Amino acid sequence: MKLTCSKSDLLNGVTTVLKAVSTRTTLPILECILLQATSSGFKLISNDLELGIESNVNANIIETGTVALKAKIFSEIVKKLPDNEVEITVDEKNYTTIICEKSKFNISGRSGDDFLRLPTVSKDKYIKVSQLKLKEMIRQTIFSIALEEIRPILTGELLEIKNSKLNIVSIDVHRVSIRKLDFESEFDNVNVVVPGKALNEISKILDTDEEKDVMIYFTNKHVLFELEESIIVSRLLEGDFPKYEQFFSKDYDTLIKVEKQELLNSIDRAALISRETKNNPIKITIQSDSMVITSNTDFGDVYEEIDIEREGNELEIAFNPKYFIDALKVIDEEYIYLQFTNPHSPCIIKQVDGDEYKYLIVPIRIR
Amino acid sequence: MKLTCSKSDLLNGVTTVLKAVSTRTTLPILECILLQATSSGFKLISNDLELGIESNVNANIIETGTVALKAKIFSEIVKKLPDNEVEITVDEKNYTTIICEKSKFNISGRSGDDFLRLPTVSKDKYIKVSQLKLKEMIRQTIFSIALEEIRPILTGELLEIKNSKLNIVSIDVHRVSIRKLDFESEFDNVNVVVPGKALNEISKILDTDEEKDVMIYFTNKHVLFELEESIIVSRLLEGDFPKYEQFFSKDYDTLIKVEKQELLNSIDRAALISRETKNNPIKITIQSDSMVITSNTDFGDVYEEIDIEREGNELEIAFNPKYFIDALKVIDEEYIYLQFTNPHSPCIIKQVDGDEYKYLIVPIRIR
Repeated sequence: MKLTCSKSDLLNGVTTVLKAVSTRTTLPILECILLQATSSGFKLISNDLELGIESNVNANIIETGTVALKAKIFSEIVKKLPDNEVEITVDEKNYTTIICEKSKFNISGRSGDDFLRLPTVSKDKYIKVSQLKLKEMIRQTIFSIALEEIRPILTGELLEIKNSKLNIVSIDVHRVSIRKLDFESEFDNVNVVVPGKALNEISKILDTDEEKDVMIYFTNKHVLFELEESIIVSRLLEGDFPKYEQFFSKDYDTLIKVEKQELLNSIDRAALISRETKNNPIKITIQSDSMVITSNTDFGDVYEEIDIEREGNELEIAFNPKYFIDALKVIDEEYIYLQFTNPHSPCIIKQVDGDEYKYLIVPIRIR
Repeated sequence: MKLTCSKSDLLNGVTTVLKAVSTRTTLPILECILLQATSSGFKLISNDLELGIESNVNANIIETGTVALKAKIFSEIVKKLPDNEVEITVDEKNYTTIICEKSKFNISGRSGDDFLRLPTVSKDKYIKVSQLKLKEMIRQTIFSIALEEIRPILTGELLEIKNSKLNIVSIDVHRVSIRKLDFESEFDNVNVVVPGKALNEISKILDTDEEKDVMIYFTNKHVLFELEESIIVSRLLEGDFPKYEQFFSKDYDTLIKVEKQELLNSIDRAALISRETKNNPIKITIQSDSMVITSNTDFGDVYEEIDIEREGNELEIAFNPKYFIDALKVIDEEYIYLQFTNPHSPCIIKQVDGDEYKYLIVPIRIR
């Protein structure tokens, strides 16, 4: 194999595929990046068996071939090369020479044949969505996936396509997060669960340019994200995702409208006291046109008051402040609705004008 | 005690004194900040027995008094308060109430009498120096203090005032770093060793405004830094600092002039290979008008070539690349001199036009 390419193109490719390289593994080939030069172009490929990434790099291919290089040292070398043309040559023993200006590296590689190829994904079922929108939807839901593997299905997020809508849903024991997106086109129904770790890495690769789309292809085992220069394949989690809609009651006894940032700041402060003694709850009291947030511990107490618009009953209810803080942090709008039924039923955070997001938080019983 | 002050003034003070609060200690009072309101003003004070800081906060004092508050929770509360006027009230049981807008905290404090006062430092011997200059001098030398306490004196930096010059010097087993500053005024001779940890914290408090000066007062036991709104007192290390000048030979057999950033980049890349097998050295070969840097390990090899201006003999010498990288990173100038005698004698990095800094690096013997 022999080729030349620019340092910056190479670095972009390496940075992308690094996200699917294993760092702690007993299978050394998983710590490698595959360099593949064929008649159709130069590709970098990584695969940690959960996630696989292929990235095309613009290159002048002089001789085709493949080699698997340790990702850590190869990426460090590429990062530190001068910003100029890079020449990569691989001999029949996989000995790889990297030259840029007056800098020359020789490192041992492994045969490209040892590398585990990415699964093939058929392209029958698909959707097309803005990269920025998808990135946002992941950010606004991923925080409430379950971190423990007691129910492995909950360590992923549901991607559901139904009635020309994409719903992304995450659930752990105490909360549910939902983001919805309306499609302009019609797509087939889909119901798959993508591992949270994979979605985290994918969201880092997605562009923030609103004009750029991503094609997403679905099979029973895999999901494939197709970007301009890269494709990302993730395996799916197997099992039944809970029917999340049953948790959201349409009825409520109290509905309040509140400034999001003010609520977040107040709960954030109240959490300082509640945290001091092992996640003591915060108490929320809704009365006339104000919401009072308090927390009392042996160490001290805090009292916060916020103006609200209220519809329905007064109420006293307690929560783990972390769950509120997590949800409020990802909401971008100025005002939100909080919907309550009674002190033992969940609070639902809703959008004021629309139905793009919903967050459900289970309360803590107060004595 | 009762007073009001602005959140931003209070936060500035807290951020400053936090740098001398112990986080791991068996003496709980050392985890506190002292709030002291007297007829002469409002002060925050911290003291971890090595370093002590006093910071004045602009305040409207309604009732004088003192209280010691846990630094962690007090600083977190202040950080998260709305950006408005803060009212602090302390009752006779040291119960402290902090009010800002509609936010109200009550936390238990400790008697201010339990707090360990800062040592008194007489103001006979002193220097006056630009805060920015001092900050730079610390940054450019602190990296080579000894981290292990085998010779405790080397865990600090020498501050030496001699012949209208301030010299700051750090030494560990394999290297010496010196920064010099010429004074315009005459000051008494001084020779003290300040703990590295204290200097690190002090340099964070120093301003980057070139116009602002700091007064430094010296006794046999302590050094006091006086800034606009704060004073910082550090105890000194006891013992004899090595006579560093003896290490710097004036004679040399090879002197080269090289572009600093190019040298740093090349050694940085060569270190990638040398690091792969437990700090293998890099080899430097100086020949005609170039400097070649190589490193060979089982894993691979690297070859870097740099243009130089040479005076004197050709040479082959080996180093731990880390020591070069540390020194080159803090030098701000475009070109530097490297001075060599033979493969077994140290390399000295010098300024091209002047004598503001000198870095000595001991080589590694090659077989």
